[in-house]
Amino acid sequence: MKVFVVGAHGKIGKQLIRILSESSKHKVRAMVREAEQAHNFQSLGIETAIVNLEESVEKIAAGAIGCDAIVFTAGSGGHTGADKTLLVDLDGAVKTIEAAALAKIKRFIMVSALQAHRRENWKDGIKPYYVAKYYADKMLEQSNLTYTIIRPGGLLDSEGTGYISVAENISGGMISRKDVAKTIMSSLDEGNTFYKAFDLVSGDLPITEALKLL
Amino acid sequence: MKVFVVGAHGKIGKQLIRILSESSKHKVRAMVREAEQAHNFQSLGIETAIVNLEESVEKIAAGAIGCDAIVFTAGSGGHTGADKTLLVDLDGAVKTIEAAALAKIKRFIMVSALQAHRRENWKDGIKPYYVAKYYADKMLEQSNLTYTIIRPGGLLDSEGTGYISVAENISGGMISRKDVAKTIMSSLDEGNTFYKAFDLVSGDLPITEALKLL
Repeated sequence: MKVFVVGAHGKIGKQLIRILSESSKHKVRAMVREAEQAHNFQSLGIETAIVNLEESVEKIAAGAIGCDAIVFTAGSGGHTGADKTLLVDLDGAVKTIEAAALAKIKRFIMVSALQAHRRENWKDGIKPYYVAKYYADKMLEQSNLTYTIIRPGGLLDSEGTGYISVAENISGGMISRKDVAKTIMSSLDEGNTFYKAFDLVSGDLPITEALKLL
Repeated sequence: MKVFVVGAHGKIGKQLIRILSESSKHKVRAMVREAEQAHNFQSLGIETAIVNLEESVEKIAAGAIGCDAIVFTAGSGGHTGADKTLLVDLDGAVKTIEAAALAKIKRFIMVSALQAHRRENWKDGIKPYYVAKYYADKMLEQSNLTYTIIRPGGLLDSEGTGYISVAENISGGMISRKDVAKTIMSSLDEGNTFYKAFDLVSGDLPITEALKLL
């Protein structure tokens, strides 16, 4: 499967690009905003597309065309304002969903946030971020795409264990970005994750086993 | 019809409260955030409910219960940040939609913004605001409520003419807040506005006639 990774230069994105490019089953195209980021990936032999999520649906579709799946793991990040949360995390995500349809790409994996689907569990300091994720996830569920929504808990830069816990509702927990990336990759062609949304934290089952029990 | 006005203390809200309270056909309850605002309305004999749109759906529903229609004309305003745009203009609006269902109120009028339904026509400086309005409107259209989405052009404090132009797409124009309020009131029980969304600017047809031609 050839995977279009939106947010390739982000922390989860970089991990995902690495393991996809090392995998024998998959190919990858990294979507990045800047020529320099593209150059970095190209020097590693990784295909790129330069697109900004504030551009049109058509531009995003043109970047994705020819791929078989899209992973949305972009985030405006904590250093920008909530205006970018609206433009990137919400509208950028939904434009990517629309771009998938336009480019006839059926498979779509969204990286969301733990408990983003339950308003009463949104953490106080970052509520506006949850609002954006909530509606982006909702729009994906209402699309005609073969979606999976992965909602990881607190993100760590540690090595990861390869062992996870997944469920519709998990009250809290942490997970390494490497394990999130591995969970995304394992979900790509795991039919049991199709049309599902789930919380994800570090746990005690190997990733592929955990996904089969969803 | 008893109308629950969300954003009663706003500029359109105040106009709407005034004409509804003067009307023989309607009654009104003003939803405000602060006790002082409630006191101001009460001193004019107007019923109030003190609710903050950042509170729960249940709280909003409790404020609305017993009314026959809800008008959402709240806005976080230009003086607050985009975090409030997410929490109030988007999630506050959708919580009000959910509250309507909970309080068994079928009729819902949303005050949106000219061309909010067409991404390519969003004005550059206030794009994040359009994002919020766009998704709030979308969620209303997907609800089971008898909705009307009114998208006024540039808002004026002038007297108004009582003459409007309405259509699915109007490229631009202005309208007085008084005429917006009158258009809301006329839409309340005008079946021809049910399940419709339209742009609204000052024009050359009397309000009730214009609404019949939608």
